[in-house]
Amino acid sequence: MVKEGDKVLLYGEDGSKIIITVEKGKKKGTHLGHVNMDDLIGKEYGDLISFGKKERTFYILPPTYIDLIFNMKRRTQIVYPKDASYILFKLDIKPGSRVIDTGVGSGAMCGAFARIVGNKGKVYGYERREDFYNLAKKNLEGWNLDKFVELKLRDIAQGFDEMNIDALLLDVPDPYNYIQQCWQALKGGGKIGIICPTTNQVQQVLERLYEYPFIDVEVWENLMRRFKPNPERLRPFDRMVAHTTYLVFATKVLRKMGGVFGE
Amino acid sequence: MVKEGDKVLLYGEDGSKIIITVEKGKKKGTHLGHVNMDDLIGKEYGDLISFGKKERTFYILPPTYIDLIFNMKRRTQIVYPKDASYILFKLDIKPGSRVIDTGVGSGAMCGAFARIVGNKGKVYGYERREDFYNLAKKNLEGWNLDKFVELKLRDIAQGFDEMNIDALLLDVPDPYNYIQQCWQALKGGGKIGIICPTTNQVQQVLERLYEYPFIDVEVWENLMRRFKPNPERLRPFDRMVAHTTYLVFATKVLRKMGGVFGE
Amino acid sequence: MVKEGDKVLLYGEDGSKIIITVEKGKKKGTHLGHVNMDDLIGKEYGDLISFGKKERTFYILPPTYIDLIFNMKRRTQIVYPKDASYILFKLDIKPGSRVIDTGVGSGAMCGAFARIVGNKGKVYGYERREDFYNLAKKNLEGWNLDKFVELKLRDIAQGFDEMNIDALLLDVPDPYNYIQQCWQALKGGGKIGIICPTTNQVQQVLERLYEYPFIDVEVWENLMRRFKPNPERLRPFDRMVAHTTYLVFATKVLRKMGGVFGE
Amino acid sequence: MVKEGDKVLLYGEDGSKIIITVEKGKKKGTHLGHVNMDDLIGKEYGDLISFGKKERTFYILPPTYIDLIFNMKRRTQIVYPKDASYILFKLDIKPGSRVIDTGVGSGAMCGAFARIVGNKGKVYGYERREDFYNLAKKNLEGWNLDKFVELKLRDIAQGFDEMNIDALLLDVPDPYNYIQQCWQALKGGGKIGIICPTTNQVQQVLERLYEYPFIDVEVWENLMRRFKPNPERLRPFDRMVAHTTYLVFATKVLRKMGGVFGE
Repeated sequence: MVKEGDKVLLYGEDGSKIIITVEKGKKKGTHLGHVNMDDLIGKEYGDLISFGKKERTFYILPPTYIDLIFNMKRRTQIVYPKDASYILFKLDIKPGSRVIDTGVGSGAMCGAFARIVGNKGKVYGYERREDFYNLAKKNLEGWNLDKFVELKLRDIAQGFDEMNIDALLLDVPDPYNYIQQCWQALKGGGKIGIICPTTNQVQQVLERLYEYPFIDVEVWENLMRRFKPNPERLRPFDRMVAHTTYLVFATKVLRKMGGVFGE
Repeated sequence: MVKEGDKVLLYGEDGSKIIITVEKGKKKGTHLGHVNMDDLIGKEYGDLISFGKKERTFYILPPTYIDLIFNMKRRTQIVYPKDASYILFKLDIKPGSRVIDTGVGSGAMCGAFARIVGNKGKVYGYERREDFYNLAKKNLEGWNLDKFVELKLRDIAQGFDEMNIDALLLDVPDPYNYIQQCWQALKGGGKIGIICPTTNQVQQVLERLYEYPFIDVEVWENLMRRFKPNPERLRPFDRMVAHTTYLVFATKVLRKMGGVFGE
Repeated sequence: MVKEGDKVLLYGEDGSKIIITVEKGKKKGTHLGHVNMDDLIGKEYGDLISFGKKERTFYILPPTYIDLIFNMKRRTQIVYPKDASYILFKLDIKPGSRVIDTGVGSGAMCGAFARIVGNKGKVYGYERREDFYNLAKKNLEGWNLDKFVELKLRDIAQGFDEMNIDALLLDVPDPYNYIQQCWQALKGGGKIGIICPTTNQVQQVLERLYEYPFIDVEVWENLMRRFKPNPERLRPFDRMVAHTTYLVFATKVLRKMGGVFGE
Repeated sequence: MVKEGDKVLLYGEDGSKIIITVEKGKKKGTHLGHVNMDDLIGKEYGDLISFGKKERTFYILPPTYIDLIFNMKRRTQIVYPKDASYILFKLDIKPGSRVIDTGVGSGAMCGAFARIVGNKGKVYGYERREDFYNLAKKNLEGWNLDKFVELKLRDIAQGFDEMNIDALLLDVPDPYNYIQQCWQALKGGGKIGIICPTTNQVQQVLERLYEYPFIDVEVWENLMRRFKPNPERLRPFDRMVAHTTYLVFATKVLRKMGGVFGE
């Protein structure tokens, strides 16, 4: 049942998605008219609601985290679900994990970590731009995930406060400049993931990674193709997202034995 | 520090990976010689150990979940990390989620759900083959995840015991035959994910999905490319996994308004 | 040197491409102003020309066949260069080849075959719609390739006039209905290529191919990725053409020995 | 009909391919037994022949150029059909084209150009290694394409003998070192194609291309996926060739107007 305080996704026939937070006695303006929130309260999820002059009908759904991040206010490039999900898995994030995320940007990856690590874990988010820091703070609060995150308005050049971190995501324009700081923050066997949109960044990151005790260095690229869901004419969509970023992963060790070079 | 009872990944210079459970006073035989487990206890993760006649050196690492599933005993096709991670994200799995996984197979997806849903959630695993059921049980126990999973030796043709399920993964050879049962088990707004290795299965699944109140139907295929991590000759590996499965996702609603078709 | 009668490509700084046929004493109107054709005559290819009120500058280039087909009048879906080139190679088109192309559509594939087969070969183009037939005729004349092509306004249900054809391209909405006719027209060892935009068409085509003596059946899909040509930020373009068509190829034999099934 | 002197492809049920040149009165030894060549003469293409102790049956087919190059003696990495065909199309090769190919390697691309350019065109093949030069010579003779090709045993550092070349393929380990020489050999509006297996090579090539009057610079990568041709279980093969090379294309102009940067 929808109740006060819930975030609700209104999903239209045309695929439009509106997310609102339900407040008793209030109205929410959308580009299709006003939603009387009291009409939502008590409705079952999966049910329908109509509003506006044209009485447009919408499904009432619980928003997923993907819905939330595509709906959030953002000023930065988003980490796509295809990449975000793979990062979570490769960095082995689980309840209790202690994770560093930097730069935080709009906070989407911070939130993705936070919703898994839970009370026994912690996400440390480093961001040097105040506007991003404030935006991420607001977004995380909106998702009720701020309690799992410690945001820091800080440049990472001087390093991280934490030690023995389980996993670290490095998403800055010049990642090759902070490999040492990352190595120091990670525990032995800890995982680093690095966002590199260009091949040049991958090359520079690899060069620096090999200077430090990192092993199991992998570079991945994720091509997600979506199909038109028509059973009688099944085929991929004509166009796709062809590139978002390359992903570099590695594992910290205490010292290195030899010149392991990938596979 | 490595302590008794830990699962430890020994990672060799050549990329070989051995997982052992540390038991005081015992030895573990590997194809490269015997590991004296007492030598491991007290070592720091990320450190090195040598053993065997040739004194081969290995890194001592905490195994990730990916390491565990690639190392488990299995008799079934595995859901690849690229697909498993995307399923977790698209099905919006989080602490507290109640999830059905069927067929369970070797238990890798059950475990992937279990490690996130935690104490407040639950994974219900349906498997009709007794050998798979027993194998999955053993694997989940080995990963200490069995407490989050309720395994059932059961054919799903007669439906599921649970109602108001948050998410359901359908991974059987004839998924199109169980769409009704899945719809019944899901909550309004609940998510279904379906594993379809062939285009024919996708077509049949789509046909059946449109007969029931499911919306937001998406078909995806995930192409992961891996690069040789050589900064001076950066290029993809010559060969890649070109296909594992198509993934179909949809959202349950209580009733349908119109003929929404994909995007 | 540019001379009268030449087709000339004017290539602008912004990537815009205008193709004109040079006629002495005439002007050609473009969206950027009038080109005085006499100014082109005698210029060297690769040189520059300016025209229009804003004196916009263009490179004078010989148009490639790809330029011509992207510039032609068309009413049909074009076979993309990535697919057209692979078809030419897989069908083993060379000077002297006798080729059937059907449906002709706007004539782009007819022309692609024609420019290779030359005087000793021939392209037979079957098209049942008169408007397409006329359009293809005009396009082929414009490319000076009509002398290598015999266009026929005809439905292919009753078969082809020719026998012992080296290669045949089948590009119609219901290719599975003409497999027998194609087999009859081909020589022993002759090649067929079939355009199938959807997986359903591929499945139906395969079913029919196996009913006739065809071997070496292959199904391909061509994903061309383009990169931003920036040496300091080398990366794929954000978006790509994700799907045009599947390509099915097979070889005619006189009779079949066994149930060869792909690789 | 098969006649003396023909190259014939024997295609086995298991997909094995044997190419032989038919000589009257002779036998050809294969790993499956001896073929009596007189048995082939007079047979129709597409028919069957059996030979060897086990009386294995083969289809008698005319070999395609793809069959020939995969069957040739080679000591170098081959340009894959997916790339070779796209190069032919993008370089706009047609009867009469004058083309430079360097390095020649085993001669497969020389031959691919040669079979199209015909008597009115010419292929100039530059190769600096004598063993490759001799191998390519022999291969081209075997394909009856040597008359269209002028092979030169020569380092290209000192440039090419020809001027006003229509198209040029640069396939050497250090292509960035010969951009000037290529520019000089090409006609205005002439096309260059460059084989670059690594991203580093692409970056270096782009840097040099922008130093000379080249426009319309494009970087492509071709991913060909092959499907299991089973109509009831249509799906891609599990594994694919994930990478062969990046392809860089550009057009020579006489002088440059501005800093056009890709699209």
